[in-house]
Amino acid sequence: MPATRADGRSADQLREVRITRNWLDHAEGSVLVEFGATRVLVAASVTEGVPRWRKGSGLGWVTAEYAMLPRATHSRSDRESVKGRIGGRTHEISRLVGRSLRAVIDYKALGENTIVLDCDVLQADGGTRTASITGAYVALADAVSWLRARGSLAGEPLIGSVAAISVGVIDGEVRLDLPYEEDSRAEVDLNVVATGTGELIEVQGTAEGKPFSRDVLNQLLDLGLAGCADLTRLQQEALAR
Amino acid sequence: MPATRADGRSADQLREVRITRNWLDHAEGSVLVEFGATRVLVAASVTEGVPRWRKGSGLGWVTAEYAMLPRATHSRSDRESVKGRIGGRTHEISRLVGRSLRAVIDYKALGENTIVLDCDVLQADGGTRTASITGAYVALADAVSWLRARGSLAGEPLIGSVAAISVGVIDGEVRLDLPYEEDSRAEVDLNVVATGTGELIEVQGTAEGKPFSRDVLNQLLDLGLAGCADLTRLQQEALAR
Amino acid sequence: MPATRADGRSADQLREVRITRNWLDHAEGSVLVEFGATRVLVAASVTEGVPRWRKGSGLGWVTAEYAMLPRATHSRSDRESVKGRIGGRTHEISRLVGRSLRAVIDYKALGENTIVLDCDVLQADGGTRTASITGAYVALADAVSWLRARGSLAGEPLIGSVAAISVGVIDGEVRLDLPYEEDSRAEVDLNVVATGTGELIEVQGTAEGKPFSRDVLNQLLDLGLAGCADLTRLQQEALAR
Amino acid sequence: MPATRADGRSADQLREVRITRNWLDHAEGSVLVEFGATRVLVAASVTEGVPRWRKGSGLGWVTAEYAMLPRATHSRSDRESVKGRIGGRTHEISRLVGRSLRAVIDYKALGENTIVLDCDVLQADGGTRTASITGAYVALADAVSWLRARGSLAGEPLIGSVAAISVGVIDGEVRLDLPYEEDSRAEVDLNVVATGTGELIEVQGTAEGKPFSRDVLNQLLDLGLAGCADLTRLQQEALAR
Amino acid sequence: MPATRADGRSADQLREVRITRNWLDHAEGSVLVEFGATRVLVAASVTEGVPRWRKGSGLGWVTAEYAMLPRATHSRSDRESVKGRIGGRTHEISRLVGRSLRAVIDYKALGENTIVLDCDVLQADGGTRTASITGAYVALADAVSWLRARGSLAGEPLIGSVAAISVGVIDGEVRLDLPYEEDSRAEVDLNVVATGTGELIEVQGTAEGKPFSRDVLNQLLDLGLAGCADLTRLQQEALAR
Amino acid sequence: MPATRADGRSADQLREVRITRNWLDHAEGSVLVEFGATRVLVAASVTEGVPRWRKGSGLGWVTAEYAMLPRATHSRSDRESVKGRIGGRTHEISRLVGRSLRAVIDYKALGENTIVLDCDVLQADGGTRTASITGAYVALADAVSWLRARGSLAGEPLIGSVAAISVGVIDGEVRLDLPYEEDSRAEVDLNVVATGTGELIEVQGTAEGKPFSRDVLNQLLDLGLAGCADLTRLQQEALAR
Repeated sequence: MPATRADGRSADQLREVRITRNWLDHAEGSVLVEFGATRVLVAASVTEGVPRWRKGSGLGWVTAEYAMLPRATHSRSDRESVKGRIGGRTHEISRLVGRSLRAVIDYKALGENTIVLDCDVLQADGGTRTASITGAYVALADAVSWLRARGSLAGEPLIGSVAAISVGVIDGEVRLDLPYEEDSRAEVDLNVVATGTGELIEVQGTAEGKPFSRDVLNQLLDLGLAGCADLTRLQQEALAR
Repeated sequence: MPATRADGRSADQLREVRITRNWLDHAEGSVLVEFGATRVLVAASVTEGVPRWRKGSGLGWVTAEYAMLPRATHSRSDRESVKGRIGGRTHEISRLVGRSLRAVIDYKALGENTIVLDCDVLQADGGTRTASITGAYVALADAVSWLRARGSLAGEPLIGSVAAISVGVIDGEVRLDLPYEEDSRAEVDLNVVATGTGELIEVQGTAEGKPFSRDVLNQLLDLGLAGCADLTRLQQEALAR
Repeated sequence: MPATRADGRSADQLREVRITRNWLDHAEGSVLVEFGATRVLVAASVTEGVPRWRKGSGLGWVTAEYAMLPRATHSRSDRESVKGRIGGRTHEISRLVGRSLRAVIDYKALGENTIVLDCDVLQADGGTRTASITGAYVALADAVSWLRARGSLAGEPLIGSVAAISVGVIDGEVRLDLPYEEDSRAEVDLNVVATGTGELIEVQGTAEGKPFSRDVLNQLLDLGLAGCADLTRLQQEALAR
Repeated sequence: MPATRADGRSADQLREVRITRNWLDHAEGSVLVEFGATRVLVAASVTEGVPRWRKGSGLGWVTAEYAMLPRATHSRSDRESVKGRIGGRTHEISRLVGRSLRAVIDYKALGENTIVLDCDVLQADGGTRTASITGAYVALADAVSWLRARGSLAGEPLIGSVAAISVGVIDGEVRLDLPYEEDSRAEVDLNVVATGTGELIEVQGTAEGKPFSRDVLNQLLDLGLAGCADLTRLQQEALAR
Repeated sequence: MPATRADGRSADQLREVRITRNWLDHAEGSVLVEFGATRVLVAASVTEGVPRWRKGSGLGWVTAEYAMLPRATHSRSDRESVKGRIGGRTHEISRLVGRSLRAVIDYKALGENTIVLDCDVLQADGGTRTASITGAYVALADAVSWLRARGSLAGEPLIGSVAAISVGVIDGEVRLDLPYEEDSRAEVDLNVVATGTGELIEVQGTAEGKPFSRDVLNQLLDLGLAGCADLTRLQQEALAR
Repeated sequence: MPATRADGRSADQLREVRITRNWLDHAEGSVLVEFGATRVLVAASVTEGVPRWRKGSGLGWVTAEYAMLPRATHSRSDRESVKGRIGGRTHEISRLVGRSLRAVIDYKALGENTIVLDCDVLQADGGTRTASITGAYVALADAVSWLRARGSLAGEPLIGSVAAISVGVIDGEVRLDLPYEEDSRAEVDLNVVATGTGELIEVQGTAEGKPFSRDVLNQLLDLGLAGCADLTRLQQEALAR
């Protein structure tokens, strides 16, 4: 495909992706993940034990919380702590990230341990939820290694890897990894969460401007799955460092 | 497909769907929509004017709120009003319903009027979000007619119809319109929101048990789009009454 | 008395009252109660055990929560869940309903079980609190029967029945069972909660326009107690069906 | 009636009532009102203007807020500010106090001014709501005088006076002005709010132990109205000082 | 120093200080403390046991809550309970009062008992936080005596006394114990919390108008420590009565 | 002084301080400030206009908000947004940062513009409030330059510079710039906020273990002011880059 995008990328090309492990000193796993100018700090926190409703089951638990710093965006947003309530978008993305990671977890092998993934967006330029998932997988893998090193596991809790990417239709063209400038005027917006072996964990497609056909959906899925495969490779490289 | 389901339905069959219009006396549009034992009361409220951020634009607004009565479910849930906060699931579904209806609205034709769709689940047996969207379209159509009768419209605000249905993989079989018993043990869960002409508005698929293939996704989409077509017909019949 | 009211009723006449039992599938007791256009869905939820402060006492507990759907009224109200707080009126009525039902409960016979009565107003046309109490008694009776059938009772927890009705002074005339149109311009407003044997459980009278005399109070009480007697009969008929 | 009460009073006797005006320096009216050991500080705050929904009507507004200090009671209660929400009892009493005072206000004569009555219970020994109403009337009268002195009134806003007292059935005997020790074990509890001319503003009677007859209600009303007459005299004396 | 202040005091002179013990009947210690027109009611509440995080340690706990009545100030403030959140200033002062008192407590001698100091400002005219601390020490001493009389102590929990005073620079002059009129236009504002033996517990100095020198700080500290010594004497006198 | 500290520093030595400007793309000023392992991201957001209470005054406004990411600390803390309320410590530090910066602002020269300083602690190792103030000054200076470049200023709003440092008594020795390990066991803890010319803006000293003398306070102030002078130099170097 020809390079028609404002940032010079071809339609099927990821932005520059950087995955920096161990960005924090205290967390059991931590990653600064960057998709272009989008910058998310992910911290994986391990605690012994599980929520009350799961106690005694022998099963572990993985959950996630997503949030944005007030000036991650072009204009400042009020803090949700100051407003005294979590917004719908924050809730929705927190749930998506948690669900996506749980899809590759064997709770039994994890044992009665809990891992919380905190995804805090330091700077937003589109794709914050997909960067969060992609980075969180790496932080999760490090937290699992930390548990393994302590001899706290009953087996291998990671039954796969997870990556996520946004795709969309802009100016009638299907494109991969939308920055804010494209995202804000996309006609269709699709987030794909996939395993390292190319199976689907979550597909969320939304008509922003007008309804879309099965054919467009198929093109978007092709592009998204190819993007996830690229991300999977970058995750493996980061974990190998 | 053979009838293998607990309620005797075939895999591609809807539950009994009832759409009762004008269930309330005050609302500009109201529908009691039932998908089997799932029962949602939808009220469409019209107010002149739009939210502050939209004033003077000449454009209208449509939004939705979803909630469940405390004893809609098998065991009683605490009220969100008593807890003092909206849960993530409530937020997520409210946003989905609003987005789905806005996809068929011409804001210009609506003029500076706001329509709020309140979807209150009186009884839940799976598919409450898809029943909400399907019923809300009918209530919205009635609210639009009410505005038309008052001469408050600048054109035809409804540029299409919307219906929604859940599909899933249960015991390895793709099935339409999941009741709670199936939904709670589905391996894959997909909600399809489509227009009356079969185009997609929203696709949300989630691996509940394990990741799924493109092939499974395609089967689910086929089934879901067929279900939406059936619902479209039932909506038209209700509106014709 | 002559029929001087907008809806053709005589001053001492109830609106049409309908009590539909088992309106919900899951609740241990449920009633759709209608006083004219006022429509309240009452669900009785039984749980084993009692609140912490009552544990080990051998005594049961009964409580109630009242709420209105946003479009129960002529114009839409914001949801209390969205506002993040319960309003004073909601609090006040929830407390009244709970107190009224507890007046006919023998906690010892109930044993350490809790029954929660959820009264959700689907449509409001005056008298929502009295319809709630009247319907809640029937739902409570069904919940008690459910407990009895399970052999969970230590005796008969219901030591009486409860009904409630509003009375008021409109255009200088005392009237029974006020619809919204009358309630909103009543000079005096009185709610009477009484047992099936005609004794008083709660009397709440308020001068809306101007203070009232003992004589007026007496006329209102006569009318209210007669209305409660009528409702008691309708409750017994509903429970006999 | 013979003196049978723990504090030596006869059944129809008030506790010692003290009404101290101008307890605060800043408020336009302020009263420390004491019914025995119950001590309520009432401040009347005048502001020019009325709430938004009343602007331009030419009418004034009067409202009230009631609260208890955490250690007003025998054991300490958590602050509602710390809990982040107002309890049902607080809401209910705030509404009662406001309603009671509004019954003697001519909004037109008040003009577009607002008077807020803050009733803060410094020490509680039963009857806090009736002491609040009784004291608030005096603070209100002072605030009205303050407005009159400034020439801000369009006439006489006070069309009467208000007093309130609790009565109840304890050990089968009807008694006036219940201290906590009696209130907590009363079989029936009635609050009477009346004008200085003996008309009723509010009657709230509750069966605490068991339902009560019309005859008992009548005895309670006799006693309560006599108590209100005594309080009216004490209010007039305080205002004359 | 010459008397240059609006209220006729010399620069190093306290306002009239009144410490009235046992102002409440129920609290284990209670004080109405007045610094001129500033009037704070302090209640000390003793409960057996300590917060969860301290259980089994053998150590006691002391904490404080500060609040203002809505009309303590010149114009009425909204209640924090109604706003549903505690403001920053309230939080800050509550923490300061608690910290100050804990500085003279031997937790071991207190045993597993908790003392809560509630400081409620009935009227504010500057110095509410320093009056709160000064009064709270006296209420605390009474609560400790109450515990001692019950034989609940493992030794002497009070290892010193605490007093606090505000000092500031107004019109270029350092002054002691600022009333609101001075506080609101102070160039520098310093609160000193000191023990009865003249050692420092807390020093909080703020440039309100412009930064200040070490020399000014030293003058303020001299004045503040002298004021604390005066207050210590008044506390001892009050406790001796 | 000899090097007696765990990290090899002498008692009067700062940790390694790094001030990285323009860490964010969108904010009008942004700094990543590091005091050793303490890492705070400061964003300065400029908006035209001022809060309502200041409109039409011709004066600008500067305020600050401080918060910590959940895993900034050794063990994870719950988010204040999830808890639905801001804690006392957060409130207190937000107020301190805002006050400190306002001390060097000429509101008139700023004109009716608002600058919000968001200080988000990415990693905490003691001194987060002093690092916040020190970094916020640099971000503020950049935001002021941004306003100057746009021609939006009426003069020079920065009338000085601000830096802050913590000092304390550990093991009987006065030390500069405490990391968490020292801070958590300090006997006395003092935060000094000073201008670039060595005058005081804020002094907050607290006896953590036991009361302290004037002499100790003086040693702490000497050390703190010397530390602020070092920080001032580092701020100037950063701004010169």
